[in-house]
Amino acid sequence: MLHPAQAGLFAGMASSHVVHGERFRGRRLGMKATAYERLRNSAREIALLGSTASVLGWDQETYMPGGGVDYRAKQIAWLSARAHAQFTGTGFRRLLDAAEKEVAKGNPLGRANVREWRLDLERAVRIPTALVAEETETAARAKQAWAEARKRSDFGLFAPHLESILRIARKKAALWGYPDEPYDALLAGYERGTRTRDVAVLFDGLRPRLAKIARRAVKKSGAVSPGVLRGRYPVEKQHQLNREVAESIGFDFERGRIDTTAHPFCTTLGPSDVRLTTRYDVSDFTSSLFGVLHEAGHGLYEQGLPVEEFGAPAGSAVSLGIHESQSRLWENHVGRSEVFWDRWLPRARELFPNLRRVEAGDFLRAVNRAEFSFIRVEADEATYDLHILLRFDLERRLLSGELEVGGIPDAWNAGFEELFGLTPPDAARGCLQDIHWSMGGLGYFPTYTLGNLNAAQLFRTAMQERSVASGFRAGDYGPLLAWLRTSVHAKGATLSPRELVKKATGRVPAPADYLAHLEKRFA
Amino acid sequence: MLHPAQAGLFAGMASSHVVHGERFRGRRLGMKATAYERLRNSAREIALLGSTASVLGWDQETYMPGGGVDYRAKQIAWLSARAHAQFTGTGFRRLLDAAEKEVAKGNPLGRANVREWRLDLERAVRIPTALVAEETETAARAKQAWAEARKRSDFGLFAPHLESILRIARKKAALWGYPDEPYDALLAGYERGTRTRDVAVLFDGLRPRLAKIARRAVKKSGAVSPGVLRGRYPVEKQHQLNREVAESIGFDFERGRIDTTAHPFCTTLGPSDVRLTTRYDVSDFTSSLFGVLHEAGHGLYEQGLPVEEFGAPAGSAVSLGIHESQSRLWENHVGRSEVFWDRWLPRARELFPNLRRVEAGDFLRAVNRAEFSFIRVEADEATYDLHILLRFDLERRLLSGELEVGGIPDAWNAGFEELFGLTPPDAARGCLQDIHWSMGGLGYFPTYTLGNLNAAQLFRTAMQERSVASGFRAGDYGPLLAWLRTSVHAKGATLSPRELVKKATGRVPAPADYLAHLEKRFA
Repeated sequence: MLHPAQAGLFAGMASSHVVHGERFRGRRLGMKATAYERLRNSAREIALLGSTASVLGWDQETYMPGGGVDYRAKQIAWLSARAHAQFTGTGFRRLLDAAEKEVAKGNPLGRANVREWRLDLERAVRIPTALVAEETETAARAKQAWAEARKRSDFGLFAPHLESILRIARKKAALWGYPDEPYDALLAGYERGTRTRDVAVLFDGLRPRLAKIARRAVKKSGAVSPGVLRGRYPVEKQHQLNREVAESIGFDFERGRIDTTAHPFCTTLGPSDVRLTTRYDVSDFTSSLFGVLHEAGHGLYEQGLPVEEFGAPAGSAVSLGIHESQSRLWENHVGRSEVFWDRWLPRARELFPNLRRVEAGDFLRAVNRAEFSFIRVEADEATYDLHILLRFDLERRLLSGELEVGGIPDAWNAGFEELFGLTPPDAARGCLQDIHWSMGGLGYFPTYTLGNLNAAQLFRTAMQERSVASGFRAGDYGPLLAWLRTSVHAKGATLSPRELVKKATGRVPAPADYLAHLEKRFA
Repeated sequence: MLHPAQAGLFAGMASSHVVHGERFRGRRLGMKATAYERLRNSAREIALLGSTASVLGWDQETYMPGGGVDYRAKQIAWLSARAHAQFTGTGFRRLLDAAEKEVAKGNPLGRANVREWRLDLERAVRIPTALVAEETETAARAKQAWAEARKRSDFGLFAPHLESILRIARKKAALWGYPDEPYDALLAGYERGTRTRDVAVLFDGLRPRLAKIARRAVKKSGAVSPGVLRGRYPVEKQHQLNREVAESIGFDFERGRIDTTAHPFCTTLGPSDVRLTTRYDVSDFTSSLFGVLHEAGHGLYEQGLPVEEFGAPAGSAVSLGIHESQSRLWENHVGRSEVFWDRWLPRARELFPNLRRVEAGDFLRAVNRAEFSFIRVEADEATYDLHILLRFDLERRLLSGELEVGGIPDAWNAGFEELFGLTPPDAARGCLQDIHWSMGGLGYFPTYTLGNLNAAQLFRTAMQERSVASGFRAGDYGPLLAWLRTSVHAKGATLSPRELVKKATGRVPAPADYLAHLEKRFA
C-alpha cells in the first residue's frame, strides 16, 4: 500500500497539533505563561527543527539513494534557515530580555539556560546573513576542491579556497571579538570559556612529555607483530559482538541503534533516539569495535542528558572537549584495558575461532600497539595528540597572520618531522588529510586533546570510588556510568567545561592524569 | 566523531540558504516574479515540508528505536501544521486568486496546477481547525481501541470510537458538500471527480460476474496443493531476487531503495527518492516478491512523475485508483503471468534449490491459486474485490444513516456469507480486520477495485502496441514502462482519473477488460 501519509489518510489530521510558538507546550490552565516558559517553548521548537534536520542527515549518510542528495540539501537548508530565523528573530530576543529579569531571582537551572541562550544569541546575531551565505557557498566549493586536491595530492588546488575560508574566519573572529587573539573567538564556538593562550600553555607542557612517551611506546611496540589479529571476521558477527559490548557499557538500544557508514559518527535525533554508526573491516574486528566504543561514549553522554530539558542548554552537551572525553574514556580507558579483555576476549573467541590461537597477552599488546603514522584518524593513543599539537600550532599562526596559506605544506612537514621524525611522502598524507578546514572548522582540533585530558582526569577520579573500581575490575560498568551520569551528563551545559571538570574532579583541567595514564599504559 | 551538524561544524552555515516563501527559487534577474511563480514556490515549500515528514515517517517504520515514538510524533505534527498553515493562509490564497487571472490565457500545465490547487484549497479551508483537532484526537484514541478490540475480537470496544469517527465524517461531508449523498464528499478526497452512484453502478455490474469467476476459480484451485511452494527461503536470497526483479521492471535504485517493515508500503521522500518496503516469510518467497512487485508499481509511478513539477499537481499522482492501477498491473498482469515466470523461475531455482523439484505448470498454478478466505490483505486476485464490494456497501449505508454502527457485525457477516458462502468465525477475522476506519479513512476502500479495473484497461490497451506485447513476451518490460510513463505517469494530476483513463485507452473506465482478464486467468 501507499504509506498512509501519502495516501491522504492523515491529510489534515496531524495538522491539528498546532505547535507553533508559545502554543507548543500548553499553558497551565488559567495562568499566564511567564516569559521564561514562552522562551523555553520557542527553544523547544528550535530544537525540534534541529533534530528533524538530524534525522535527514542521518538518513543521508546511512540509507539515502544517491539520487536524493540535491533535494535532501534543500530540506536540511530549509530547516536550518527556519531555526536560525526563529532564534535570531525579535520574538526570541524580547522573550530573552524579559526572562533575564524573571530568572534573576529564580532557580539556578533557569538562570543557567538564560545565560547560555544569551551567549549563543550574541554570537549568532553578530554574523550578518550575507556573511553566513558567503561562508556556506565558500565551504561547499572548498569541500569539493579539497576532495579533488587530496585525491591528486595537490595543495595548490585547495589553497585559494582555504584563503577564502581563512578570510571569512578572520572576519567572523573580528565580529565576535576576542580577549587576546582571533583564534579565541573560533575556539569559543566549540569550547566555551576557553582561551587560546591557556590551551597553548597546556599543550606546550604536554609536548615534550608526549613526544617522549610516544617514542618509547613506538620503540616498545616494535616487538609486537602488527599481523597477529589479522583474520576473517564476518560483518554479522562483528555487529553481534559490538552490540553486546555497547549494551554492557549501558548504551540503551530502546533509545538508540547502530548502523553502518563510511565514516563513523554519533547523532541525536530526539531526546530518546541516539544513533551511532561504525564501519567494518572484515580482516580486523577491532576497527569496528573500538569505533563503536568511541561512538557509544558520545551516545551515552547524549542518552544521559536530562530528557525534560531537551533543546535547552541544561539538556545539551556542554562542549566538544567534554563530549570527546566521554568517547575517549570508553574507547581507551575502558576498551583498551586488561580487565575489559579478560571479560570480552573469551566471547570474541567464541565468535571468531581464529582468535583462539592468539594469547591474551599478545592480544592486549596488539590493541595497544603504537607506531608513528601520517594519518591522524588512524593514530593510536600514544601518538594521537602529536597530530593535534601540530594542527593547533598551524591554525593559530594562520589566524594571527604569522603563517600564510601558501606556507602550510612546508610548515606542516617541518612540524611533522620535529614531532614524529618522519616526513609525509605527499600532501594527501600531510596537510590535505583532514576535512575540517574545508568546512570552515578552524578551532576544532584542540578539542580532541582537551577531550583526552578530561577523559583521564574524570576516569581517575571516578576510579577513586570503591564501587566504580571494583565494578570496573569485574567487568560491570554500571557504577562507572552512574558516576558519569551524575558528575557529567546530568549537568548539561549549566557549567562551563572548566567548571564542570573542577566540580567533578576537584581540580581544574590539567595534564597530570593523562600523562600518568599514558606512562603506565606504555611503560 | 560527532556528526558534523551536531559538532557545530555547520552551525549557521546551512542557514544561509534563505529558502522561505518566494525566495525559495530565485527570481529571474531583473524580472518581477509573476503571481504564478510565487504560488509555485510556495507550493514547493509546502511539498518540502511534506516530504520531510515522509522521511520521518519512513524512518519510524523501518529503523527508529521504540523510545523515539513520542518525540517523532511531535516532529511530524509540527511539519504538518506548518504546511497546513501555509497552504490555508491568506498569502497562498491571494497568490492563487492572482494566478488564476494570469494563467487564464497561459499554458495548459499552469492552468491545471491552478485549478487543482483551488480544489484542494476549497476542501482544506472548509474544515475548521477545531474539527481537524477533534478528528486527530479521535483517530488517535480510535486506533488504539481498534488494536485492542481486534486483539480481543470484541467489536464493542471499538464501537463508541467508530461512532465518533462516523459523526466527524458526516460533519466533514456536510461542510464539503456533495452532489448526491454524503459518501461522495469522502470518496472525492481519494478519487477526485468520482461519484458514489457511478461506483455503485460499476460495482453492481461487477458483483454477479465476479462472484461467478471467484467460485469457479476456487473450485478449480482445489486441485492445486497449497504446500507446493513451501520451503526454506533465506531472507538475503529473497532480497537478492526481489532486487533483480524490481530492477528488471525499471525501478531505479539510484532514486530509491527497498527496506523491511511489518506492513509493506511505498513512500516518496523527494523527487528522486522513492522508498519501498516489504516483509519476508522464510517459508514462502512469493510473499515478499509479490509485495515488492506491488510496491514497485507504486514506486514506478512516483519515479515517473515529472521531477520539475514536484510539489505541484502536475508532478503528483492523480488519485488512489490510478496509483493502485500501477501496483496491480505490475503485481498481477505482469508478475502472475506465464511469460514472467518463464524468465524468472530459472533464476529463482538458482537461488532456491528446493524449487528445482517444482514443475513450471504447478508453480504457475500455485501463484494463481484462489480460495475464499476471511482476510482482505491475504486475498488472491479472484476473490479480492468481493472484500471491497462488501466494505463499500457497508460504508455507504453507514454514511447515509441506513446502517448504525451497532449493526455492523451482523451486516458484515450477512454480506460476507452472501458473497463468500462462509461466516467469519469472529470479529477479528470479520469487521475488525482493517485499520482504515480507525484512522478516519472512510471512502478509501473502493479505490482498490477501481485500481483493478484501471489496471486491466490500461494493460490491455498497452498490449495492443506491438513493441509492448513482444517485449512482454520476451521478458523485456521497457516498452510497457515507456507506454505507462507517457500515458499515465507524465500526466501527473493534470487530468481527472476518468479523463486520464479515457485519454490513455480511448474508453472511460469500465469493467470489461478486468472481467476478461480474470475469466482468462481462471478459465
